[in-house]
Amino acid sequence: MTGRFAAASAVRSVGDGRYAGEVAEGWDLAGVANGGYLTSMAARALSERTGRPDPVTVTTHFLAPARPGPVTIDTDVVRAGRRFATARATLADDTRPLLTVLGTFGELPSGTDDGERLVVDGAPPPLPDPDECFLMDPANASVPAIFSKVEIRLHPDDAGFAAGSPPGAARMRGWFRLPDGEELTSTALLLVVDAFPPTVFNAALPVAWTPTVELTTHVRARPAPGWLAASFRSRFVTDGFLEADGEVWDGTGRLVAQSRQLALVPRG
Amino acid sequence: MTGRFAAASAVRSVGDGRYAGEVAEGWDLAGVANGGYLTSMAARALSERTGRPDPVTVTTHFLAPARPGPVTIDTDVVRAGRRFATARATLADDTRPLLTVLGTFGELPSGTDDGERLVVDGAPPPLPDPDECFLMDPANASVPAIFSKVEIRLHPDDAGFAAGSPPGAARMRGWFRLPDGEELTSTALLLVVDAFPPTVFNAALPVAWTPTVELTTHVRARPAPGWLAASFRSRFVTDGFLEADGEVWDGTGRLVAQSRQLALVPRG
Repeated sequence: MTGRFAAASAVRSVGDGRYAGEVAEGWDLAGVANGGYLTSMAARALSERTGRPDPVTVTTHFLAPARPGPVTIDTDVVRAGRRFATARATLADDTRPLLTVLGTFGELPSGTDDGERLVVDGAPPPLPDPDECFLMDPANASVPAIFSKVEIRLHPDDAGFAAGSPPGAARMRGWFRLPDGEELTSTALLLVVDAFPPTVFNAALPVAWTPTVELTTHVRARPAPGWLAASFRSRFVTDGFLEADGEVWDGTGRLVAQSRQLALVPRG
Repeated sequence: MTGRFAAASAVRSVGDGRYAGEVAEGWDLAGVANGGYLTSMAARALSERTGRPDPVTVTTHFLAPARPGPVTIDTDVVRAGRRFATARATLADDTRPLLTVLGTFGELPSGTDDGERLVVDGAPPPLPDPDECFLMDPANASVPAIFSKVEIRLHPDDAGFAAGSPPGAARMRGWFRLPDGEELTSTALLLVVDAFPPTVFNAALPVAWTPTVELTTHVRARPAPGWLAASFRSRFVTDGFLEADGEVWDGTGRLVAQSRQLALVPRG
């Protein structure tokens, strides 16, 4: 892999199931590194540890905010079977664990394999062409720097929050790609599902931030090259929690990932 | 706790973070113990280990079929914070690990607390009265014995599979309670989300069984006493996998749990 995401999520084995990585500058929101980016780094360690190329289902529990700097990832394999391997990782800085991951890894079909689609009760979100969507443009001082690491173009109907006029529905839809034509691997989908602005930004709620407790992603297939279409929705903001469900589709019209996260809704 | 489910899912500490339990007879389908039941057992060990009463989000990866008999559950705490504790467990028989769990535990609101409902974009499934629903009756030879451990009454529209005429939609809705008035704890919700017949039974697919790879449950609140209304749906049966999304509502109309599982769809 080459490219900025590949470099920023790289890990190297230092023996005894431990990997070393570095939380890169610029992958943060308000100083806290993006959870999908950190999950990708842990998943790369687990993929290497298990010798399986693709994440199939990966769950992360977030424990403490991660800042730029060196981290270690301790891994252990719970079971290595013929088709899948299940393993765990805890990513820590020099003082404490920051996140812990449980994942099953294997080998997924690629975008050029037709696959088998027995039930498809859903479709990619209806998006205008990328050029007609709202670019999360880091040249704009109100847009966090992470949007120079990923290219996101939102459905115009879902960009209201950026102009201070949220449309009301807890929804976020748009296009995603990595800059400079960097290849989208199956592991990069773990970033995609956490890279969009939060759904609640578009719901007119007295909620400023929603720290993620847990994020689970199912990867169904390796994405075909090109833009990905993603949609996120929160249906239940209750009892101090919300879920955000995501779907990611590649340009061939294939569902390549589903995600769900549980986040806290601190009372306003 | 008293009652059959409480007894069947009981664990006792044997020191060094290890718990002992027993997979009880009758909690199986075709000899393989139910995954929600096993997850509940592991969660009880984690709840005791962390000293937190309620599961908040629990993910299980299933490794091998569990049969009746003694098991051990090895636990470790990744982080114990003020509000939540995150911990891991692996449940094994005397030869191999059967499932591994990652969960965050805390204290949830109870059914009598009004809570805060900022967004509710969904509702309990429209179900006829329990007496007018289809009882999964273990007195019927075609109904597995596990349905004597749980009482499930299906929406008549979703019982077609039992008569050999699946309606076509990959959906399952119905009522749930534990027999003999046994109390439904927050931990019991981890059973509820995996106790219904599979959604694909109602889709006319060339699929006989769908082994679960991973099951994640978010528990939002402790359920009020009485019947629970649950609905399950699979929207994407593609590339050899399916997801099944569940919602569980208590009698006060509160969403008490959401679940998603990833299962294999062996080619027919």
